[in-house]
Amino acid sequence: MIEPVAGGVRRVGVIGQSRYGDLAATLQALGRFAAERGLELCVEPRLESMLPGTCEFRPGEMDLLITLGGDGTLLRGARMVAPYHTPVLGVNLGYLGFLTSIPPAELEVSLDRVLRGQYWIDARMTLEARVEGADGQVGAPYIALNDAVLHKGGFARAIRLAVRVGPDGEEVGAYSADGIIIATPTGSTAYSLSAGGAIVEPSVPCILATPISPHTLAVRPVVFPADVVITVDVLSPSEELILTIDGQEGEALRPGDRLVARRGEATVQLVRFPGQSFFNTLRRKLSWGAVEQGRG
Amino acid sequence: MIEPVAGGVRRVGVIGQSRYGDLAATLQALGRFAAERGLELCVEPRLESMLPGTCEFRPGEMDLLITLGGDGTLLRGARMVAPYHTPVLGVNLGYLGFLTSIPPAELEVSLDRVLRGQYWIDARMTLEARVEGADGQVGAPYIALNDAVLHKGGFARAIRLAVRVGPDGEEVGAYSADGIIIATPTGSTAYSLSAGGAIVEPSVPCILATPISPHTLAVRPVVFPADVVITVDVLSPSEELILTIDGQEGEALRPGDRLVARRGEATVQLVRFPGQSFFNTLRRKLSWGAVEQGRG
Amino acid sequence: MIEPVAGGVRRVGVIGQSRYGDLAATLQALGRFAAERGLELCVEPRLESMLPGTCEFRPGEMDLLITLGGDGTLLRGARMVAPYHTPVLGVNLGYLGFLTSIPPAELEVSLDRVLRGQYWIDARMTLEARVEGADGQVGAPYIALNDAVLHKGGFARAIRLAVRVGPDGEEVGAYSADGIIIATPTGSTAYSLSAGGAIVEPSVPCILATPISPHTLAVRPVVFPADVVITVDVLSPSEELILTIDGQEGEALRPGDRLVARRGEATVQLVRFPGQSFFNTLRRKLSWGAVEQGRG
Amino acid sequence: MIEPVAGGVRRVGVIGQSRYGDLAATLQALGRFAAERGLELCVEPRLESMLPGTCEFRPGEMDLLITLGGDGTLLRGARMVAPYHTPVLGVNLGYLGFLTSIPPAELEVSLDRVLRGQYWIDARMTLEARVEGADGQVGAPYIALNDAVLHKGGFARAIRLAVRVGPDGEEVGAYSADGIIIATPTGSTAYSLSAGGAIVEPSVPCILATPISPHTLAVRPVVFPADVVITVDVLSPSEELILTIDGQEGEALRPGDRLVARRGEATVQLVRFPGQSFFNTLRRKLSWGAVEQGRG
Repeated sequence: MIEPVAGGVRRVGVIGQSRYGDLAATLQALGRFAAERGLELCVEPRLESMLPGTCEFRPGEMDLLITLGGDGTLLRGARMVAPYHTPVLGVNLGYLGFLTSIPPAELEVSLDRVLRGQYWIDARMTLEARVEGADGQVGAPYIALNDAVLHKGGFARAIRLAVRVGPDGEEVGAYSADGIIIATPTGSTAYSLSAGGAIVEPSVPCILATPISPHTLAVRPVVFPADVVITVDVLSPSEELILTIDGQEGEALRPGDRLVARRGEATVQLVRFPGQSFFNTLRRKLSWGAVEQGRG
Repeated sequence: MIEPVAGGVRRVGVIGQSRYGDLAATLQALGRFAAERGLELCVEPRLESMLPGTCEFRPGEMDLLITLGGDGTLLRGARMVAPYHTPVLGVNLGYLGFLTSIPPAELEVSLDRVLRGQYWIDARMTLEARVEGADGQVGAPYIALNDAVLHKGGFARAIRLAVRVGPDGEEVGAYSADGIIIATPTGSTAYSLSAGGAIVEPSVPCILATPISPHTLAVRPVVFPADVVITVDVLSPSEELILTIDGQEGEALRPGDRLVARRGEATVQLVRFPGQSFFNTLRRKLSWGAVEQGRG
Repeated sequence: MIEPVAGGVRRVGVIGQSRYGDLAATLQALGRFAAERGLELCVEPRLESMLPGTCEFRPGEMDLLITLGGDGTLLRGARMVAPYHTPVLGVNLGYLGFLTSIPPAELEVSLDRVLRGQYWIDARMTLEARVEGADGQVGAPYIALNDAVLHKGGFARAIRLAVRVGPDGEEVGAYSADGIIIATPTGSTAYSLSAGGAIVEPSVPCILATPISPHTLAVRPVVFPADVVITVDVLSPSEELILTIDGQEGEALRPGDRLVARRGEATVQLVRFPGQSFFNTLRRKLSWGAVEQGRG
Repeated sequence: MIEPVAGGVRRVGVIGQSRYGDLAATLQALGRFAAERGLELCVEPRLESMLPGTCEFRPGEMDLLITLGGDGTLLRGARMVAPYHTPVLGVNLGYLGFLTSIPPAELEVSLDRVLRGQYWIDARMTLEARVEGADGQVGAPYIALNDAVLHKGGFARAIRLAVRVGPDGEEVGAYSADGIIIATPTGSTAYSLSAGGAIVEPSVPCILATPISPHTLAVRPVVFPADVVITVDVLSPSEELILTIDGQEGEALRPGDRLVARRGEATVQLVRFPGQSFFNTLRRKLSWGAVEQGRG
């Protein structure tokens, strides 16, 4: 799953989350570094005022995408470039993230490493999710790196879901819940973990289905093989039912709509450096090894 | 908590949920029984077409309220009459409920028992919940028998909550989550159970605060003494934030609004018959004693 | 539950856990302080070599018990003096505990406060647990501040338990599990929390019954009123079945034995100082407010 | 994972669990069927008195193994014949099992199907677990179909575990707990589920590590790729520490011992018939679709 990659980086895309105070300064530093090294920087339109005069931001025409922000910014960037297999380097302007790998202070040395080819690609599986209407119409596919979440909206009561799996649509089960999370292994440490799902090492070929506040105690998170097609039918059409992709984009569903999710064709190419590992990050994020509750 | 009660029932209110097929027939049977026994029936306006000619439905002027439907119907009725200490008899038109105590087939024999005074009152604590605006304005109080739930709405991301407790407002903790459930012991087997809360015997004097899909693994459901005031401040004002009472009524909150919940002054007077108990119902509802998973 | 207490402390008992490196130095400091202030120190026999020449250690004849160690040391001391209502001051030689309230550096100033009566008593409910044999014989009662735990031993498979409650022994449920934890609110943050129980504020009058790895998903932790008698019968007599009190003492049960637990008559009198609170400790112990997992 | 298999069955081994009342009658029926069809039956020694005169029971020389009992009996048989790839047909004398596939009433028609080749092989991954001593000595490997469980014994307090993974032994985390379950996907519905693990479809190539009652809330079940080596070191050597395989066999560990688990070379060949599926069994075993708790 992790493979070394040769250099050849010339055009670098940049996106960022302006909520972070360090964004402008990090962008400036990046601009200076690019000028020194002869890299062509292309910042996304919403950041142009902070670093004017860069090339046009076209997701399909970059050798590397740098995301400045948190995991959310990286998720947004990853979905942009997933179809083009562009490596993504996440710079963390806030707390340590699961996906972002370096703090701003290490941006220049890390970029230098990338230019020398001293990095690894940590390829992450994606999900492809579509909404199928009762009229047979199929919506455009969403690509998710973390998850596709079906959730009751606003004042809606719990919804009754029927989950089917496999090319043949075998019934897994039907239950009432606030919603359901269809997640990649990468997403196992995000919303799915909040809802009681297991932590899945990113290279396990699987898809998770984690119920959100189910009405029955017997229903539990299920881990499916990666090659299944998961279908979620909503048996109790609520006035408000919402599909969210990576917690960021989505749409309201109509009665009779159905969610169909499967492994995406694209993978997201995360840039990693020696010494960075999933479990290392996990231990730090979840404070494993911190003081324990103690039973006396 | 459970005390025998003398008779004196003459005027009987009736509410019902028309989703159940048996509603009309049960209403007719009730009408005949009332005529035989000289009871005055008052059905709520929405049911008048099914049993015309009854007296006007005024919550404060009944000796007994009969609810025809499920636990949801009983919750609705209980909130109506809680201020008047009117006994509530729940008839279950669907599956066994936690609150409703008899099937339609036993309605007449049960009413007969009530008329003879052969029943108990199972008095249940309520919650009083108010919304306090940033401008100091305080909304009208809601009465809940199960719970007051603060939940992110629609496409909103998780919300950051700060929970305070006690007359002095001591900080309990702040965390991000989909929402929080403030529940009575009666509500411990409803939404709170779905979200991972403990089952609390109804007579334990306490209030539960159960987080919904919290972002941190360290936060867990907390059981407070019944005499506290619980305040929930929303630190990350989301565009959509919703308060729901017993899953049935509620309002959208505005940025800066705060939820204040405490034990309600009213109690709900559930009519019970000998042999009916909380644990008996629990075992049947949760299928305790059913086949187990077995570890080999 | 928390009440100010007047002084009058003259004879002070001391117990300690020799695993902590700071024990000897803390004892010496305590000896000097006692000499200065005219207090009579009585150290338990196992510590005599570290501070010789103190008075005889008799649990019933002390005005205050100081425990030097962790929560475990305090639990041991609390059970010793619970019948005599002796206030207990826990000094924490290791990490912050739920029960111990001060670090060694604050021992002298804290004792000074106790002598001036500037403290509060945080009275904690105890459990009384007995083993009843199939032959009708009843064992001597154990007193627990945290919990009484019934657990399968060694190679034993899961055990089938039947839980009954109340003066009349109403059935709660029967299920197979590794064991069951009967806990006080104080014990809710100990073993019960590990097994999935809720956190209960110490003044809620209740007893918790938390199953350990039950074989069925439907069984959940239950919170009972404090005035019940809980009986646990073991339906599948395993060759090895163990009762543990506060994780420290206990006995092996024989086939047909039954556990009977109820609220203990004694309460444990924890010495507290202004500013110390349950939720303050909870936030620090569980790292509430620490970095969250983040969903992007 | 599931593949049709041609016939050729002549010698059939039989094991059974005498706890079930139907064992003798089922054995007799099996004897008659074998005589009619010219099959050679070999019953295990402990059953010889119930069906005398059969051939000698040698695990490596059978074309099919029939297990009469529950999942436990099948687990025992599966471990016997796993090295020889012998198909295993589980007859369930008690409740429906996860692994056993047919009731006694269907034994003859099922065997007839096997003889005609009308069945499928559902190949299940196994675990190989070894104990490595502090002296470098390595114990004989155990084969598990469900799990290898490290658990504190008897009166022992919680144990501190360090989990490492991969050929290179990267640290996953260290924590205190009652124990840890290393499970196959097949074992995900057994002990691991009781301890809070996810349900994993049997064909997902992975190994689960599920902590038992961990002392810290931050530790959660982890799903690893199937090709890792998992090492569990016990940092706090307790006097009693026990390894159990499939809940059936095992050994007491000594201080300094280490558990090393990896995917087993053998797979267990479960005999399946059309219409039998994992999710079908799961729904029936866990009562999915049963009455729900209902939130009102």
